[in-house]
Amino acid sequence: MAQSSLPISFLSDFGLDDEFVGVVHGVLAKLAPDSRVIDVGHSTPRGDIRAAALTLTRAIQYLPEGVALVVVDPGVGTERKALAVESEWGFFVGPDNGVLSPAVAMTGGAGRIVAIENPEARIPSPGATFHGRDVFGPAAALLASGEAPIGELGPPVDPDTLHPLLLPLPESQGAAVTGEAWWVDGFGNVQTNIGPDDLARLGLEPGSAVTVKVGAGLHSIPWVATYGDVGPGEPLLHVDSSGLMAIAVREGRADEELNLSSGVAVTLAGRGSRSAE
Amino acid sequence: MAQSSLPISFLSDFGLDDEFVGVVHGVLAKLAPDSRVIDVGHSTPRGDIRAAALTLTRAIQYLPEGVALVVVDPGVGTERKALAVESEWGFFVGPDNGVLSPAVAMTGGAGRIVAIENPEARIPSPGATFHGRDVFGPAAALLASGEAPIGELGPPVDPDTLHPLLLPLPESQGAAVTGEAWWVDGFGNVQTNIGPDDLARLGLEPGSAVTVKVGAGLHSIPWVATYGDVGPGEPLLHVDSSGLMAIAVREGRADEELNLSSGVAVTLAGRGSRSAE
Amino acid sequence: MAQSSLPISFLSDFGLDDEFVGVVHGVLAKLAPDSRVIDVGHSTPRGDIRAAALTLTRAIQYLPEGVALVVVDPGVGTERKALAVESEWGFFVGPDNGVLSPAVAMTGGAGRIVAIENPEARIPSPGATFHGRDVFGPAAALLASGEAPIGELGPPVDPDTLHPLLLPLPESQGAAVTGEAWWVDGFGNVQTNIGPDDLARLGLEPGSAVTVKVGAGLHSIPWVATYGDVGPGEPLLHVDSSGLMAIAVREGRADEELNLSSGVAVTLAGRGSRSAE
Repeated sequence: MAQSSLPISFLSDFGLDDEFVGVVHGVLAKLAPDSRVIDVGHSTPRGDIRAAALTLTRAIQYLPEGVALVVVDPGVGTERKALAVESEWGFFVGPDNGVLSPAVAMTGGAGRIVAIENPEARIPSPGATFHGRDVFGPAAALLASGEAPIGELGPPVDPDTLHPLLLPLPESQGAAVTGEAWWVDGFGNVQTNIGPDDLARLGLEPGSAVTVKVGAGLHSIPWVATYGDVGPGEPLLHVDSSGLMAIAVREGRADEELNLSSGVAVTLAGRGSRSAE
Repeated sequence: MAQSSLPISFLSDFGLDDEFVGVVHGVLAKLAPDSRVIDVGHSTPRGDIRAAALTLTRAIQYLPEGVALVVVDPGVGTERKALAVESEWGFFVGPDNGVLSPAVAMTGGAGRIVAIENPEARIPSPGATFHGRDVFGPAAALLASGEAPIGELGPPVDPDTLHPLLLPLPESQGAAVTGEAWWVDGFGNVQTNIGPDDLARLGLEPGSAVTVKVGAGLHSIPWVATYGDVGPGEPLLHVDSSGLMAIAVREGRADEELNLSSGVAVTLAGRGSRSAE
Repeated sequence: MAQSSLPISFLSDFGLDDEFVGVVHGVLAKLAPDSRVIDVGHSTPRGDIRAAALTLTRAIQYLPEGVALVVVDPGVGTERKALAVESEWGFFVGPDNGVLSPAVAMTGGAGRIVAIENPEARIPSPGATFHGRDVFGPAAALLASGEAPIGELGPPVDPDTLHPLLLPLPESQGAAVTGEAWWVDGFGNVQTNIGPDDLARLGLEPGSAVTVKVGAGLHSIPWVATYGDVGPGEPLLHVDSSGLMAIAVREGRADEELNLSSGVAVTLAGRGSRSAE
């Protein structure tokens, strides 16, 4: 029955230059004809597990409960397991390389986990296994359609053996906090891993001028509520739509202005604070 | 009931490098689970209101009646309103910056208009508002699913206060007509804002040689019915699939051959006409 | 009735920079509101009939039976016919330039074929015909929805007059086999038109070292089962997920390492074989 089919949210690093995404959609349509499929995105940098994990954690609360299918898998052809994870949110399907871990944790943690090893849950390949098409896609579709309960996909896996993904936490040193650039979006806005509460602990609040240190560069940037609070071409610090401190330039690109890219250290401090110098 | 949910046609300048489009799809799927979503496109140049408005006017008659969701919003964070507009075609949802105006006018004009300000029609954000995800997407989904009549989204707006979008009209001077390049498609074909009736008034007709002036360049280009009427590599003028005069090069790129880009002035005249010289 | 609408798989060379793909989706949604639409891909190089035909043959067995809509049409505006082809798999809709031929042959051959010429099956254009929007899209939707049986789309076409697509076969010369690069995917993996059976005839088998000749370059590359069987940065030969011999570099790009692109000749031979020298 159509109404009982779960939606599938699909994230990969396949890009859109080939038919890889389309072929996985074909498999999903064949095996779960009544499931809606949402493309979370397919432009994760190739093999960038951290970027994909962060994308999924930013997106997950806005995706309909159902199945999350994530295929970012630099270790394809090695011993990593193919997993299906049950959680309160629904099901997560992807490789055991940490890419699922933060979103699973964020949505209440894992219930049952299995390794997708049952040959009947896979599509036989004429050659090498294309895991998105032959393993992950079919498993996602079988869970979404209800054709196979999770226990039929393969043997149970001990949650304690799962590959974790260690995401760095910001560190406070006196009157400053040091974190890192977490994500640069297509508009050049730079999300950090520093939250507004980290700044509040330093006595900073919206309206404060904040000293932003990137490498040897020091910038005084106002913490504002919205882009309209600064002039065109001017930088701003704000709590972005994910709830994290982000650096932006109105009608410009903060990544270029401040020489920031994913993983670069960023220190925030009150104006005149020694800690940021 | 599925049958009563309206389809949603979604146009933005988000690009496909991030999860922005995917997250809005997630919101639509959560709030309007039975609505079909059509991606009109997401590659409008960032903040280019005119380009998005022209895309929507070219596309609208081919989209299923329902909800048009347009998020091209360079003034995000300023005072512009978020609008929902009722028309005979259906509903238009987007910022009050003119992007909706031509398509609304083309489909019979606005009926009721409201500013999307009811907090219950929005998704609360952990930080800055992501308008596509938190305001426009939810409003489009509520209208599509029938969960909220338009009057519940917020206070009515006087149609006379709407931000217009002034699109230039071609001007006739004697035996010539001057317009501009309106759109360059991915194949390098250049659509102008000049119609076949503008040329008919000059005594030109299919089969005529037309003098095309771009900057200091003068080109004699035949007005033909189809690409096959000229040789490979040769330029042609024709009524394109939107009904406007367009310049193309068979198996080539007219934008490069004639040095044309969006907004550049183009003058068309009969052969030997002084007005085009 | 929704359940009787066929899914439509859509492949084109439109790219995603314009609204072309979105407008065709709009037409499909209007005329076949209950059909699921799968985007096989839209990034085929412009006008590359062979690339599109190969994409379709790789994908077809993974697409749900229904309608395949293919719009790669460098001869638009010439005399080539617009076709609808019935087969055991379902229906194929596209231009008569060979792009459909290999997939039709692979799925059991053509049953009835018609030229889409019935004006009632087309959408009238305000100017030039946009074949995807006005001819191919509507025909695909009418077949998918069951609104029009294939015979109503236009006059029958003799299958023997169809434009074929000649795909080169590998040739054996003594202890070597020469084929060509067939496809370079976005990861830089190079699929050839040589199958494992061609190598088996040379006495080669998984585990063998294979001499790969490209232009003046000679490379000894192991035939392995999976990427994990070689070290990072090392080349490998394997049967890829389409069942063909492919050259890859673990965590690298084989196209760049071996100077390979689509259409380049590739000779495979046993180690020490004269034929490959």
